[in-house]
Amino acid sequence: MLIENTWYVAAWSHEVPDGAMFPRVITGLPIVMYRKADGEIVALEDRCCHRGAPLSLGRREGDCVRCMYHGLKFDSAGTCVEAPAQQRIPPRVKVRTFPVVERHRWIWIWMGDPALANPDAIPDTHWLDDPAWRSLPGYIHYGVNYLLICDNLLDFSHLPFVHPTTLGGSEDYATVQPKIERLDNGVRVTRWTINTDAPRYAAAVKEWPGKVDRWNIYDFTLPAVLCMDSGMAPTGTGAPEGTRVNAAEFRGCQALTPETENSTHYFFSHPHNFAIDQPEVTRSIHQSVVDAFDEDREIITAQQKNLALDPTFRMTAFGIDSALSQFRWVVDRQLAEEREARQQLTGER
Amino acid sequence: MLIENTWYVAAWSHEVPDGAMFPRVITGLPIVMYRKADGEIVALEDRCCHRGAPLSLGRREGDCVRCMYHGLKFDSAGTCVEAPAQQRIPPRVKVRTFPVVERHRWIWIWMGDPALANPDAIPDTHWLDDPAWRSLPGYIHYGVNYLLICDNLLDFSHLPFVHPTTLGGSEDYATVQPKIERLDNGVRVTRWTINTDAPRYAAAVKEWPGKVDRWNIYDFTLPAVLCMDSGMAPTGTGAPEGTRVNAAEFRGCQALTPETENSTHYFFSHPHNFAIDQPEVTRSIHQSVVDAFDEDREIITAQQKNLALDPTFRMTAFGIDSALSQFRWVVDRQLAEEREARQQLTGER
Amino acid sequence: MLIENTWYVAAWSHEVPDGAMFPRVITGLPIVMYRKADGEIVALEDRCCHRGAPLSLGRREGDCVRCMYHGLKFDSAGTCVEAPAQQRIPPRVKVRTFPVVERHRWIWIWMGDPALANPDAIPDTHWLDDPAWRSLPGYIHYGVNYLLICDNLLDFSHLPFVHPTTLGGSEDYATVQPKIERLDNGVRVTRWTINTDAPRYAAAVKEWPGKVDRWNIYDFTLPAVLCMDSGMAPTGTGAPEGTRVNAAEFRGCQALTPETENSTHYFFSHPHNFAIDQPEVTRSIHQSVVDAFDEDREIITAQQKNLALDPTFRMTAFGIDSALSQFRWVVDRQLAEEREARQQLTGER
Repeated sequence: MLIENTWYVAAWSHEVPDGAMFPRVITGLPIVMYRKADGEIVALEDRCCHRGAPLSLGRREGDCVRCMYHGLKFDSAGTCVEAPAQQRIPPRVKVRTFPVVERHRWIWIWMGDPALANPDAIPDTHWLDDPAWRSLPGYIHYGVNYLLICDNLLDFSHLPFVHPTTLGGSEDYATVQPKIERLDNGVRVTRWTINTDAPRYAAAVKEWPGKVDRWNIYDFTLPAVLCMDSGMAPTGTGAPEGTRVNAAEFRGCQALTPETENSTHYFFSHPHNFAIDQPEVTRSIHQSVVDAFDEDREIITAQQKNLALDPTFRMTAFGIDSALSQFRWVVDRQLAEEREARQQLTGER
Repeated sequence: MLIENTWYVAAWSHEVPDGAMFPRVITGLPIVMYRKADGEIVALEDRCCHRGAPLSLGRREGDCVRCMYHGLKFDSAGTCVEAPAQQRIPPRVKVRTFPVVERHRWIWIWMGDPALANPDAIPDTHWLDDPAWRSLPGYIHYGVNYLLICDNLLDFSHLPFVHPTTLGGSEDYATVQPKIERLDNGVRVTRWTINTDAPRYAAAVKEWPGKVDRWNIYDFTLPAVLCMDSGMAPTGTGAPEGTRVNAAEFRGCQALTPETENSTHYFFSHPHNFAIDQPEVTRSIHQSVVDAFDEDREIITAQQKNLALDPTFRMTAFGIDSALSQFRWVVDRQLAEEREARQQLTGER
Repeated sequence: MLIENTWYVAAWSHEVPDGAMFPRVITGLPIVMYRKADGEIVALEDRCCHRGAPLSLGRREGDCVRCMYHGLKFDSAGTCVEAPAQQRIPPRVKVRTFPVVERHRWIWIWMGDPALANPDAIPDTHWLDDPAWRSLPGYIHYGVNYLLICDNLLDFSHLPFVHPTTLGGSEDYATVQPKIERLDNGVRVTRWTINTDAPRYAAAVKEWPGKVDRWNIYDFTLPAVLCMDSGMAPTGTGAPEGTRVNAAEFRGCQALTPETENSTHYFFSHPHNFAIDQPEVTRSIHQSVVDAFDEDREIITAQQKNLALDPTFRMTAFGIDSALSQFRWVVDRQLAEEREARQQLTGER
C-alpha cells in the first residue's frame, strides 16, 4: 500500500533535458516525462494503451509521442491522435497523464486524484536554486521499502554509529533527546547538541576555534520529504538563543519516492550559504553526504535482508523511536483515508 | 495453461547430432533428445523416474541411456531395463516418451496424448531443405510468454516502426489493411502494398528499377507456426494478378514453442529462391531477419516488463488487431477443449 | 519444516577466530557467533531486537556486541545493557541466544528449546582432532534442500556412476546390497565389497598388491550427521572377519545443516590414520573428497532444478533406497513430534 494523493519528487530537472524522454517507475506505475517545446514538463503513463509497450522507447513528434511498436500517436494530454489504418479513434483511447510541477530543480508528480492536486501543498525547497546557497544534486536507488529509510532519517541517534567518520561526530551525540512535535502531515524534530566537536565533514570545509553548538531542526512530512535547517556555531556565540555568528548553515532537502513496494528513489541535496564562491567546498560537502548515505544504504539493506528472511520478526520500540513512530502513524492515517475514499467511490457505483 | 495436443518444433536437426544428448524444456517439461544408431530421433522425459536426475547428464549405451546418478538404464521406449542391485524391475518403472517427427530440418514433438499424434497435421515447411531454395537456421530464446510474440507476428503494421531500417520500408506500409481469413486452426493474413519502396533488406540483395508491389501471405496456425509466402516484384508487372516476374520470393518458416509460461523458443528461417548460388545473399537475408527479430525482442521484452509490473493493465483492441484477436480465440478454444477432455477423463475414473 | 530440537553443526572452529564476528543463517534464522575473552563461543540472533539490523555488522566491546545502527549494546546472554538516550531498559529487551558446544573443531548449535539441549547427544567425531589421525576441514554451500543431499549420502550405489574416477571404483560396486539397520535416531549402513579394485583416490596414496576388500560402515543420524568407518585391506587378509592388516582406514565425518528450506551448509572431513606424517597424502585424500563432492553437487543441483520445474513429480522407490527411505521416516517422525509439542504449548496458553 502506497500513498497516492500526495506530491512525490519524480526527478531532478536536469534528468529531463529538452527533446528527451525520461522513464521512471513511481509507486509501481511506469511514467515517462518529457518537455514540451515551451519547456513545460509532461508526465504520461509510460505504457501504450494498445498493447502496453513503453512510450519512452518511442519517438517525440513535436509535443506528441509516437509509440514505436505499432505507431499510435499521443498528444501531451494523453489522447490518441493517430492510429495506423484507422480513421476514427474512440475518445476513451488515451494514456493517463499526471499533474506535474517543476520547482527549484525538482519535478513533483501527483499520482492520485488530479482534482486534489494543489501545488501550494508542495514543501518549500527554494534553497536548491537560491543564488545565496550552493549545492549539488544527489540521487540514490535503494532496494528497500521507503519506510525503512524514513525510519533512518527520523532518528539521528544513528549518526555516531553509522557515520562515525563522516556526519557523525562523537558518540555523546546519540544521547541527546530531540524535541518531537506533531505537524498536520508529519513531524518536526529539533535536536541541539551543545559544546560538542564539529563533525568531520564540517571541519573539512571551515575552521573552528574549539567546541561547537550543533543543531538539526527539520520537518519530515508526507509522503517522505525532509527539509532541514542544520548547522553549527562556536559554543558561546549564542546559537541556541537564535544568534548565528561564524556559523556553518545548511538547508538539507531530501525526498523519498517509492519506486515499488520494495524499492525507492532517494533525491537529496545539502545547500550551504558560506564559501559559496568556492566550488571545492560545495563538492566536499556533497561528497560527505554521499559517503554517509552509502553507509546508511549498507546498514538499511542488511536490515531489509534480515526482515525478508523472517517476516514474523517484530521490531521493539525504544525512546529514540518517538519521531518515527509518530510519522508511521501519520502515514497509516493517510492510507486509511485513501482506502475509505476508494471504498465509498466503489460503493456509490 | 499451454496447449498439449499439438506438434511443437523441439529443435533444429543439427542441434541433435549423432551420439549426443540434447536437453530442452518444452511446455515446462524437461526433454532429452538423441538419435538411435539408425538416425531416428528419440524424445524422452529428461528426468529419471527414480530420483528426478536429468538423463541428459547420463551416458549413451547403444540406443539406451543410463542415468549417471544411480545407474538406472532406460531403452528408447523409456522402459527401465537395468537397475543396480535389483533383479526384477516393475513394468511401471519407466520415463515418458514423446512422439517425434523429423522433417525438413525441424524436429517436431507432440506433448499431449500420443494416440492423437498425427504426423499429417504437421505444416508443410519443405522450403527449409528444398534444393531450389536457400536459407540459414535461426533460433532465439525469449523471456516472455509466447502469445506476446504471436501478437507481434500477426500484426505487420509494426514493421515500419520497429524495423524502419531492416524489414520495414516506409510508413505507408502500416496503413494497409490486410485481409484476414479464419482457418480451421488459425488465421490466414494477406497483405498487399502496391507501388511502394523495396525494404532495405531486399534492396541489399537485388536491384530494383523503381517502385515495387509487396506481398505477405501467411498462415498462422496452432500451436504458433507461421508459413509465409512473401516477396516483391516491380510495380506494373502483374504481381497482384498472379504473375511473378523479376520478383524476389521468400517462404518464411517460423515456429514458437513455449519453454515455460514465461519463456519461449523461437525457430525461424527465411528461404529465398533467387541467387541461390550466392551464399553471401543467403547470409545477408538471414542477418537482416536476425537484426529485425532482435528489434522485436527489445520491444516485446519491454512490453512484458510493463505487463509484469501491473497485472491489472488491460489492452485496448484496435482495428489492426483483428488477426491476433482471432488467433487468440483459436488458442482459447483449443485450451478449453483440452481442459474439458481432461475433466471427462477424471470424471470417468 | 525443519527440525529444531537437535544439534546442528554451525561452523568450523577456525571460522570464528578471536575478536571476530561470524554470521551464518541456520534453519532460516540469522546467527552471529563470536568468542568471549575466555575463548568460549557465543551464538546470538544476528538481528538487533530494535529494528532488525545485523549485529554482525556491529562492534565487539569486550564480551558484548554493539549494534552499529543505533548503538544498542548486548551482552553475551543477549540482554540489552545499553541504549542511547534511555536510562531504563525493559528486561524483555534482548536478542535470542542459542546453546553452543565447541568440540573437535566443530561448533554445534541447538536451534530449539534450550531446556532440551543435552551435549551428550552430540555424535562422536573425535577423529577430527585426534593426534593419531589427519584431515583437512571441508565446507560446501549447496542451493538445495538438505534432504536431497541426505539421499545421496544414504545410497552409495551412486559412487561408480557419479564418481567413476574419484571415489567410485568399478561398477560392480553398485550391485552390492548393503545391510541397513534402524537406529533410534537414524540408520546404520554396512557395505562390504569383497575382492574389488581399490578406488583411484586410495590407489593414489597407498600401494596395493592386488584386489582389496572394501568397507563403508556408517551411522547417519539426526539431524543429518554421517560418521563413517571406511577403508580397504588386501583381499584375503581377513578384513571382513575383523582383522585390519595393511589397511587404509578412514573416519569420515560429515554434517548437513539447512541454511534455509532450499539451501544447505555442508561440513566434511575425511581423517586417515596412515601416513600421518605426510601432509601431501592428507592433501591428496582431501582433494579427492572435494572433487567427488563437486560431482555430487553437480548432479544434485540438476536434480533440484528438475524438481523445482515440476512440483507434481513423484519419485519411484527402488531397492537401493531402503536406507534413505528409513531415514526420511525418522525425520518425519521427529518433525511430527515437534509439531505436536508446539500445538500442546499453544493449546495450554
